[in-house]
Amino acid sequence: MNPAVFLKKHALKEGDFVELLEGEQLIKGTIVPCKSDSMLSLKLESGYNIDVETGKIKSIKKISAGKTVGKPAAISVKKNPLLPAISILHTGGTIASRVDYRTGAVFSSFNPQDLLSMFPELSTIANFESRLVRNMWSDDLRFRHIGIIAEEVRKEASKGVAGVIVGMGTDNLAVAAAALAFALEECPLPVLLVGAQKSSDRGSSDAAMNLICAANFIAKTDFSGVAICMHYSPSDNACAILPACKTRKLHTSRRDAFRAVNDSVIATVNYGNGQIDFIKKDYKRKISGAKVLAKPNFEERVALLKITINMFPEQFEFFSKNGFKGLVIEGTGLGHTPGHMPDEITKKAHKKIFPAIKKFVKLGGIAVMTSQCLFGRVQMRVYNKGTDLLELGVISGEDLLPETAFVKLAWLLGNYKDKEKVKSLMQKNLRGEINERIPLDSAAGDF
Amino acid sequence: MNPAVFLKKHALKEGDFVELLEGEQLIKGTIVPCKSDSMLSLKLESGYNIDVETGKIKSIKKISAGKTVGKPAAISVKKNPLLPAISILHTGGTIASRVDYRTGAVFSSFNPQDLLSMFPELSTIANFESRLVRNMWSDDLRFRHIGIIAEEVRKEASKGVAGVIVGMGTDNLAVAAAALAFALEECPLPVLLVGAQKSSDRGSSDAAMNLICAANFIAKTDFSGVAICMHYSPSDNACAILPACKTRKLHTSRRDAFRAVNDSVIATVNYGNGQIDFIKKDYKRKISGAKVLAKPNFEERVALLKITINMFPEQFEFFSKNGFKGLVIEGTGLGHTPGHMPDEITKKAHKKIFPAIKKFVKLGGIAVMTSQCLFGRVQMRVYNKGTDLLELGVISGEDLLPETAFVKLAWLLGNYKDKEKVKSLMQKNLRGEINERIPLDSAAGDF
Repeated sequence: MNPAVFLKKHALKEGDFVELLEGEQLIKGTIVPCKSDSMLSLKLESGYNIDVETGKIKSIKKISAGKTVGKPAAISVKKNPLLPAISILHTGGTIASRVDYRTGAVFSSFNPQDLLSMFPELSTIANFESRLVRNMWSDDLRFRHIGIIAEEVRKEASKGVAGVIVGMGTDNLAVAAAALAFALEECPLPVLLVGAQKSSDRGSSDAAMNLICAANFIAKTDFSGVAICMHYSPSDNACAILPACKTRKLHTSRRDAFRAVNDSVIATVNYGNGQIDFIKKDYKRKISGAKVLAKPNFEERVALLKITINMFPEQFEFFSKNGFKGLVIEGTGLGHTPGHMPDEITKKAHKKIFPAIKKFVKLGGIAVMTSQCLFGRVQMRVYNKGTDLLELGVISGEDLLPETAFVKLAWLLGNYKDKEKVKSLMQKNLRGEINERIPLDSAAGDF
Repeated sequence: MNPAVFLKKHALKEGDFVELLEGEQLIKGTIVPCKSDSMLSLKLESGYNIDVETGKIKSIKKISAGKTVGKPAAISVKKNPLLPAISILHTGGTIASRVDYRTGAVFSSFNPQDLLSMFPELSTIANFESRLVRNMWSDDLRFRHIGIIAEEVRKEASKGVAGVIVGMGTDNLAVAAAALAFALEECPLPVLLVGAQKSSDRGSSDAAMNLICAANFIAKTDFSGVAICMHYSPSDNACAILPACKTRKLHTSRRDAFRAVNDSVIATVNYGNGQIDFIKKDYKRKISGAKVLAKPNFEERVALLKITINMFPEQFEFFSKNGFKGLVIEGTGLGHTPGHMPDEITKKAHKKIFPAIKKFVKLGGIAVMTSQCLFGRVQMRVYNKGTDLLELGVISGEDLLPETAFVKLAWLLGNYKDKEKVKSLMQKNLRGEINERIPLDSAAGDF
């Protein structure tokens, strides 16, 4: 049943706090604007959204009426000629369904009026334009979505804005930031990806703070390029501006899940007073009037293979059999796979692993080694296993995150026909994704 | 050419520091005992070993003669009846080729005499037995090796030793510890896995300190069960005793690469004074005279699939097509995969992903969800993507590390025929691999 019809039938409205039975599961939550034809969307007390098929709802009752019926009253948005312009592009995710952090009311909003009535601080920072590019979870992202976002950023930039904020689900936010950094070959303005983690401790969302810090950073600094703006610590003191290609989501639920890997954060933004402290001093500066150059193409047939113990040759043969053009291996330690071991146990299973990797390369595939340690650098000339893999044609992924190597390889294969060029660019720093200067034994921070 | 013949021809000996040209690469290192019929083994100044095919060596010259010719003089090993007995089982890896940390000389040693002449402190801690079980890199480990090690531990335990140290390469040391913890269903004595990371900063290896701390921990405490003993910090102050099932190698090269995930370290061992501080107080105690029960079987056809953006159905269909019985999915965020998105871009590619997962389960396979965030807990009832996956038959991996989930699933499938039993045990804490009590938003330490 259509959720609007369903709500009417049960005399319920968006904003009502309800209790329902889906199968045997009791669910309590606030009704939020529904995205699907057949699903009722609820915001749980944990701050998460959930969709429930209206057909599966056995019973539903209202516990309390919505504090705010529908959207809050739109406030008039006068453009302040003294403030810069910032565009917000929404793509969905937790950040797209918001909690009014003053009233606790819940609604989805993508227009500047609603945004400013929810987050009044924003009006003192910049003039905002805001629109919905996509409404999806980031776990469904494909390369073509990255291409679309890159194009949309280019369009916004051409309007002369000071910067662009891209709202996105957090599952693949770091990967999307890396992919977008490659797709925007020239990016003379700041493009900040912002998401919201759940907040199990209280009803309010971390969306507000991440968004306000991102806006402050754009308005007050001369930074350009793609970066991420998320909580710097579990508290609400400051956000971190994180490098697009060297950041990873390292916790399923914490607000400060996003961490720089083999790199430091770019800057911190104090939430209380808006003060910005640059930790990196050598960032690229904004070039006013310069155009964005988008190269939105990615090769589709690229994969990432994580190595485990006890692997079988088929797991490697799969990629040449299925026409993959690029393969990022997430190896063990300094960049290793099983193979080549003169042991009666390994012999049979491992005998075909190296030939499978060799075949993939011989057929024109590009194989790149990264490490599942995440922190530290691949070093393939240390053990004979590494040099063997180099001889098979696997190239070193240096200190690249496996996910960044994956999107970089897809982007290079989508933009360069010459394989040797792809291989050489793969090992060259293009967007801050490879840190030559990080000493081997001193990654940033506690790692 | 056989390396012994090669050395004779060039008037070189083990222990000599040489410079050689392999193809166009100049390599400097100390000649160590060679393991292969055709390769010369060198220890580089970084502390790593490398094998060079004698046939590819264009030129070689001696820079300095070995400080110690052959092995150091064996010292007499008198058993001290006041000290406990510890068995050391060697399986290869960096720790198996040692640098005498006083003289800088290099050799492989697996007998107690050599061990004690290298590390004289050991003789004040315990009486040692030491033997080679395997000489391999841990990146070549298969489940059958884990079974063999479990059996060897059982044999040593039956001799009445106070504990067992297993020396191993670090690539898969944490995974092996988890697998061994499952394979040793009853383990009333301490079994410590010890490895050595490279030390790029100086010639000496971290093997000595890790080994001495492990011996001290076994000799001085009543701890029982499988754990890991590795550097606690980049300095040489202390080692950490880490939980077998909740530890991950999180740096390619640092000495303190091994970190507890969703858990705390069990104890620290001060290298200077041997003092032990337990951080966990609720560890299992040693039971003197109790027997080890080894269950060394693992199901071979189990795999781990790491999720990325832009995946194809074939990457999921592979596992049912190839007869895999278990699949651990390393999902995004709280435990998600692509699929089911009503978007014109995702529609075609994603349409068959959920059916492929469903088919795997329908054919009798067990699919377990974990998170590539590593830190934090899988929560599949938060978003509809998660509940959809639960409906397909995927079970939640709670706060399990993906690698631990992988070895646990293989072990359960190797020991229980009843699928429902496997599923229920998968979600139950058996060896400290699931922490029910870790609050969602407070993982140990800095994560």
